[in-house]
Amino acid sequence: MLVTKCVSTNLKGHLTIEGADAIELAERFGTPLYVYSESKIRQKIREFILSVNKYYNGNGMVVYASKAFSCKEMYRICMQENIGIDVVSGGELYTALSVGFPAEKIVFHGNNKTRQELVQAVENGVGRIIVDNLTELKLLDSIAKELGKVAGIMLRIKPGVDAHTHDFIKTGQIDSKFGFALETGEAMKAVKTAIAMDNVNLRGLHCHIGSQIFDVDPFELAAKVMLEFYRDIKLETGKEFDELNLGGGFGIKYLKSDSHQPYGEYMKNVAAVVNTFSHELGIKTPFILIEPGRSIVGVAGVTLYTVGNVKDIPDVRTYVSVDGGMTDNPRYALYKSDYEIVCADRAEEDRSETVTVAGKCCESGDLIQENTKIQPVKAGDTLAVLSTGAYNYSMASNYNRIPRPAVVMVKDGEARVVVKRETYEQITANDL
Amino acid sequence: MLVTKCVSTNLKGHLTIEGADAIELAERFGTPLYVYSESKIRQKIREFILSVNKYYNGNGMVVYASKAFSCKEMYRICMQENIGIDVVSGGELYTALSVGFPAEKIVFHGNNKTRQELVQAVENGVGRIIVDNLTELKLLDSIAKELGKVAGIMLRIKPGVDAHTHDFIKTGQIDSKFGFALETGEAMKAVKTAIAMDNVNLRGLHCHIGSQIFDVDPFELAAKVMLEFYRDIKLETGKEFDELNLGGGFGIKYLKSDSHQPYGEYMKNVAAVVNTFSHELGIKTPFILIEPGRSIVGVAGVTLYTVGNVKDIPDVRTYVSVDGGMTDNPRYALYKSDYEIVCADRAEEDRSETVTVAGKCCESGDLIQENTKIQPVKAGDTLAVLSTGAYNYSMASNYNRIPRPAVVMVKDGEARVVVKRETYEQITANDL
Repeated sequence: MLVTKCVSTNLKGHLTIEGADAIELAERFGTPLYVYSESKIRQKIREFILSVNKYYNGNGMVVYASKAFSCKEMYRICMQENIGIDVVSGGELYTALSVGFPAEKIVFHGNNKTRQELVQAVENGVGRIIVDNLTELKLLDSIAKELGKVAGIMLRIKPGVDAHTHDFIKTGQIDSKFGFALETGEAMKAVKTAIAMDNVNLRGLHCHIGSQIFDVDPFELAAKVMLEFYRDIKLETGKEFDELNLGGGFGIKYLKSDSHQPYGEYMKNVAAVVNTFSHELGIKTPFILIEPGRSIVGVAGVTLYTVGNVKDIPDVRTYVSVDGGMTDNPRYALYKSDYEIVCADRAEEDRSETVTVAGKCCESGDLIQENTKIQPVKAGDTLAVLSTGAYNYSMASNYNRIPRPAVVMVKDGEARVVVKRETYEQITANDL
Repeated sequence: MLVTKCVSTNLKGHLTIEGADAIELAERFGTPLYVYSESKIRQKIREFILSVNKYYNGNGMVVYASKAFSCKEMYRICMQENIGIDVVSGGELYTALSVGFPAEKIVFHGNNKTRQELVQAVENGVGRIIVDNLTELKLLDSIAKELGKVAGIMLRIKPGVDAHTHDFIKTGQIDSKFGFALETGEAMKAVKTAIAMDNVNLRGLHCHIGSQIFDVDPFELAAKVMLEFYRDIKLETGKEFDELNLGGGFGIKYLKSDSHQPYGEYMKNVAAVVNTFSHELGIKTPFILIEPGRSIVGVAGVTLYTVGNVKDIPDVRTYVSVDGGMTDNPRYALYKSDYEIVCADRAEEDRSETVTVAGKCCESGDLIQENTKIQPVKAGDTLAVLSTGAYNYSMASNYNRIPRPAVVMVKDGEARVVVKRETYEQITANDL
């Protein structure tokens, strides 16, 4: 019935998340509350691992794009599942290293890493720094030299593939702040520059064509484009790469009407393209990295809120105000993102009411969803917003000086806090 | 030359903020950095105070809407200037009380205050709680009773005035999550309910017609509508109010092409309306509260960034990547807000280049401004984004686990930190 399978209902009619009663979670930990199904996260990770094993002989690595949801416990889960992670800042890198994440399996992204971040990455032996531009390449080579190291790198390439998705999250085309353009010759020049450097080891190239993509075709096309470029590089320089990083961007279901290929299909088709083309083009079959983020944590997360009041404006609409909002989930304000919402107290009842769910911030745009169908609700009820596992906690703010919620993980019905709720003392700690 | 008068240039050609050299500030405190001109803040506050004194015999109170920029030092400045503040959450209230702000001069807003927040407000004797809806009114009356107090309140009324501004920040019309509607009779019902309660003292009514409004007309119209409602209340119940809260929403100049009436004009016109109409309608001339936020701190703030790289994509555009972005200024991602940007190293040179200023987040929508005119810049230069004093620090996030910048205030050329830069240790402090 509901969009994601990690939630169900119990005999009380309450929503459950991996067996834990949402109403009990709300009472025990307070609201707003981010709740994750740990098994769902692990299941999604394993689907990706399995697809690499099944369709590509295990000749690749799944790399969790941790900007979707970054905290110590999430990095521990990735360690336990034996996958890599991608980080996009010194803060994510710091968090991952603080739980002992192996640096060799860390991929460091970003269009504008600072000198301090590059030093941190090189000093700690990050396996692959994804270099975005020539300024960074030169800076990194000089930092590695100073530190007496050779930095493992890949170059971020814009393959020129347009994945027909939202403007904000469309990054493979030439008009992007990220990476080197293929068609202008910029990418080839960068490859030659990197090959000639002493303190970087160019392990391969990276591309990322966008986010929330439902079709396999653009991924296949990007893989082809990258392999043709590998062939050109071999012809021009003699250099062959062992690795190819195909990025992420796999879509997830926010609504029942969303449909995507099973993630296994992605690997099946892309593996076929890579195998066939590397053979035809006379280049090494590369070790592949894929970087799912949203598709690992998105559907595993649910946000619980308490309803404060219901404002029925006759002939206009009904506002249901909850005790969180754009501070813990800015995606509706940013992108008008869709979400499915359920009254956790009566999750099996018909969703017969059309309402607008509003947050508690002093801003009219602070809405979670407009004109959405939910059960009839009243003050004190618990609302569950589904599929909030990606880009909710990670994008949360303290706007209005509202503390960020706690994050709870549920495994086999047992809940534990993995990120504590913020306090007013913490919010004011830096104020002098 | 520049949009705001709190910046200038010195003999080195560097941008200065109240006399402090922006390049020296960037070196001393690091970037990104929020810099405020303290004198500009105080000047704006005094303009509002002066207008109340000059045009309304001082029969009113300026109330700083602190969601625009909330920190301890800002509340201290408001205390020193002897104005009130408005807070919109327990966190803002906690911050204000922590520096000894007098509770009687605090106005507490919000469409969905929690029970905990209402208790905090009543216990501490907040002068005016702006009650948003009937659920809250009843809850507040019962809380005040439990605590043996009488809570000073105003009711938030939707006057039905459309201020022709951005959808997100248009809040006076009936389709709003905020307040009681006039035209449906809901407002009158709420007034009568409040009057009949023992534990609340209804001091008057509040309205707020939107944000970033440049014209005086909608404010005049809202004042008229509210006074007519005061007359109706007197006729129906015999009750007269001593106070009227007209809210805020005064526009500021982000670009030179923006134009607004001097804030004094607002008070001049609105005072005339209030005096004339209260006389004509046979009601008390009320003590007036006005709630400027953006118009006090907006133009007083400047954000400094360091350029990491310049990416010129022939025939497409030039991206200038800086070391901050949507994490410290989400307003372009949220509203496509305009800002004027200057190279602080060469602030007097012609702004001859058209560039897109991008942040460092792993997100294509992480832009500060598109196709804006700045001086030719290179890696290492300092960029200054002007008029970032409102809704930048307050809306900042740790997306990508990027620490929030420090806030510095400059007074007569002397700079001091008022909010310390966040550390990685703080960002991970709640991770278990």
